[in-house]
Amino acid sequence: MSYRQIEYGVRDGIATVTLNRPDRMNAYTNTMRRETLDVLDRIDADDDVRVVVVTGAGRAFCAGADLGGGGGSFDKDKSQEMFAGIDDVLEDGTPRDGGGTVALRLAGCLKPVIGAFNGAAVGVGVTMTLPMDIRLASERAKFGFVFARRGIVAEAASSWFLPRLVGISQAMEWVATGRIFDAQEALEGGLVSRVYPPDELLPAAYALAGEIAANTSAVSVAAIRRLMWSGLSAPSPWDAHRADSRLMAAMGAAPDADEGVTSFLQKRPAEFPMKVSKDLPAEVPDWPVR
Amino acid sequence: MSYRQIEYGVRDGIATVTLNRPDRMNAYTNTMRRETLDVLDRIDADDDVRVVVVTGAGRAFCAGADLGGGGGSFDKDKSQEMFAGIDDVLEDGTPRDGGGTVALRLAGCLKPVIGAFNGAAVGVGVTMTLPMDIRLASERAKFGFVFARRGIVAEAASSWFLPRLVGISQAMEWVATGRIFDAQEALEGGLVSRVYPPDELLPAAYALAGEIAANTSAVSVAAIRRLMWSGLSAPSPWDAHRADSRLMAAMGAAPDADEGVTSFLQKRPAEFPMKVSKDLPAEVPDWPVR
Amino acid sequence: MSYRQIEYGVRDGIATVTLNRPDRMNAYTNTMRRETLDVLDRIDADDDVRVVVVTGAGRAFCAGADLGGGGGSFDKDKSQEMFAGIDDVLEDGTPRDGGGTVALRLAGCLKPVIGAFNGAAVGVGVTMTLPMDIRLASERAKFGFVFARRGIVAEAASSWFLPRLVGISQAMEWVATGRIFDAQEALEGGLVSRVYPPDELLPAAYALAGEIAANTSAVSVAAIRRLMWSGLSAPSPWDAHRADSRLMAAMGAAPDADEGVTSFLQKRPAEFPMKVSKDLPAEVPDWPVR
Repeated sequence: MSYRQIEYGVRDGIATVTLNRPDRMNAYTNTMRRETLDVLDRIDADDDVRVVVVTGAGRAFCAGADLGGGGGSFDKDKSQEMFAGIDDVLEDGTPRDGGGTVALRLAGCLKPVIGAFNGAAVGVGVTMTLPMDIRLASERAKFGFVFARRGIVAEAASSWFLPRLVGISQAMEWVATGRIFDAQEALEGGLVSRVYPPDELLPAAYALAGEIAANTSAVSVAAIRRLMWSGLSAPSPWDAHRADSRLMAAMGAAPDADEGVTSFLQKRPAEFPMKVSKDLPAEVPDWPVR
Repeated sequence: MSYRQIEYGVRDGIATVTLNRPDRMNAYTNTMRRETLDVLDRIDADDDVRVVVVTGAGRAFCAGADLGGGGGSFDKDKSQEMFAGIDDVLEDGTPRDGGGTVALRLAGCLKPVIGAFNGAAVGVGVTMTLPMDIRLASERAKFGFVFARRGIVAEAASSWFLPRLVGISQAMEWVATGRIFDAQEALEGGLVSRVYPPDELLPAAYALAGEIAANTSAVSVAAIRRLMWSGLSAPSPWDAHRADSRLMAAMGAAPDADEGVTSFLQKRPAEFPMKVSKDLPAEVPDWPVR
Repeated sequence: MSYRQIEYGVRDGIATVTLNRPDRMNAYTNTMRRETLDVLDRIDADDDVRVVVVTGAGRAFCAGADLGGGGGSFDKDKSQEMFAGIDDVLEDGTPRDGGGTVALRLAGCLKPVIGAFNGAAVGVGVTMTLPMDIRLASERAKFGFVFARRGIVAEAASSWFLPRLVGISQAMEWVATGRIFDAQEALEGGLVSRVYPPDELLPAAYALAGEIAANTSAVSVAAIRRLMWSGLSAPSPWDAHRADSRLMAAMGAAPDADEGVTSFLQKRPAEFPMKVSKDLPAEVPDWPVR
């Protein structure tokens, strides 16, 4: 599959996904949605990808849903752009919210995902990124949970992710006002982890991605990522205890643990032999990705 | 209903509820509880109210439960003040904790609630406010989860709300010491969002309320508020995805979405036609308010 | 029981548990695990203990699992040190992760637990401490969730505790990089509450413990601690409401409430008569400790 609205490349174990409609401030469309879902499957299957960086082409990250359908942009009977080809429906036939399909797919990704917010991220442009592991921002980034200003609701499962990321008070302040806020407010509120001058953003994202890729077992990272996101939705710590006991039993006897401990004791870099594509233990918590 | 222990007024779309027993530092009673429950029903039903501000008359916010019953203040067989007229019981006949009835009612409110802490908020005076969306404090505010110093337990469902608001470590430090702490410690610990000089507190609360009222769809805000509080208690992000998919399908085809998008494209203020009292979609997550 | 790998003492109502293998940087073993479980039972049963402080002997807190088993350290068929005498298994026969047995036991402790991190806390040396209520650190402390660098997974139910303590983004950054970080990063990330010069750490921990011991009802604190950790794992605030309604009904009519309110009204220190060992109400939420 070649992509029209995203760009994709891999280098030094790091995949870069670039939202790529710069003349439209990378406004989100159904095409972008389907291409993003596709590229995440490709990333999960490719052992050459250890970490993912997502950014935007041009001056925006993603300006939100493309409003080319005018006042009917969010009405499935009126908007080609947003609903054409929506084949995902809930049990009762309701079309699944598109941003949610991206968010839930991201949450299940087997590789860590770093968001590099180069510019404005508004509406679905920010909600769909909440299950990325780490968000870094340029000083020029802006954010807005503008749904209440458009007469709709916060989506992309953000009512689950956002209050867990930034606390319910900060979440409610942003969604109830619908205000546009800058990178500093995003940092203080816990939406992004760090803020950089514009030309230092991507280098910082790649440095962090490289720190992961250079030092860790890919299978460990995939298993831990699933553990953590599953743990955040697990009712009780005993669920987590069962899951990690099973994984420790499986991973503790596997080649990466041998190499991890041996290399540490020998004070040399580890060379982990296991591959996510074929060696991921069956004990890794399941996460439906569609 | 006219009120004896609270004051109520509405102006410019903003309701103000003032705890009003200044000679008793607005100590909480069963009368105050019932009046608060009543006024929240009134607020939900009144389309002229977009946002709620809660504050205290005089120098305190709420000094906690009125201890007029002496050593038996928390004993239902001994305290008229705290238990007279308690008609709410659990399935097994246990009287429902009064602070909890207020807290759970607040969590289900259809309008955003801003707490403006003008002075001391102690015991139930702070726990019952945890489901307010945003807490702002005067530099003169003080807080205390003093239950362990009184030989009782933290109530008002605070064992659910507090660790989610401020983290379990901060929660445990406050409830295990029972210490009284100032606005600065409340700010650093995440209990309040901002601290102001005393005479700037209410203006700040009204400015924030006004930011919500002026720019947003009332129905969107009501629906999003329910989504967020439901999302915080939902086991999995798929629950949130189902809820927001249904709401997006309903709201996306409704008049407020049309106006929200059209006004945005026309770069003019929106005039949302829908009313919470009659246009709230059936898809809004249910939240039992009694 | 006398202990080989921990030290235990009680003074002024405060128990100190010291991880005590200083020549091995207090590396965790199965012996240390069993002794820690034992001492926590002893602490819960001893009314002379109001608060627990856990620290490490020498320059480390706990350097993680003892890797004396070499590359097979985490393989139960190869490592005597880590698995000898493991008698705890899951329903399907999988050995229970040892760090998890400590973490879950800590979460159920009836006395508040303060971690005093004097030095390095790595791997299980930090994950097993996540259910301590409050973590204080020396400027010399270092931390590391190094599992992905050893080819294994984060354990001790940390996939449940860590994202709730520090947020999922900070959790993922630490577990995906496996980096070693200093006390300042731990403080900024929310893993520890405060950082002190080395010789001020234990005095600060004892001062905080003393603040709890001097001012509060032991039964209230035990009940509230269970409420808070149960509340963090309760699906809905109504669960918390039921639990605290029942506890308020029980505690409100008990002697500590009488003394708590009376002493407050008389402006004198309280002398609470109730004992955790025999007066803990049946309404306290259950927490399986094994």
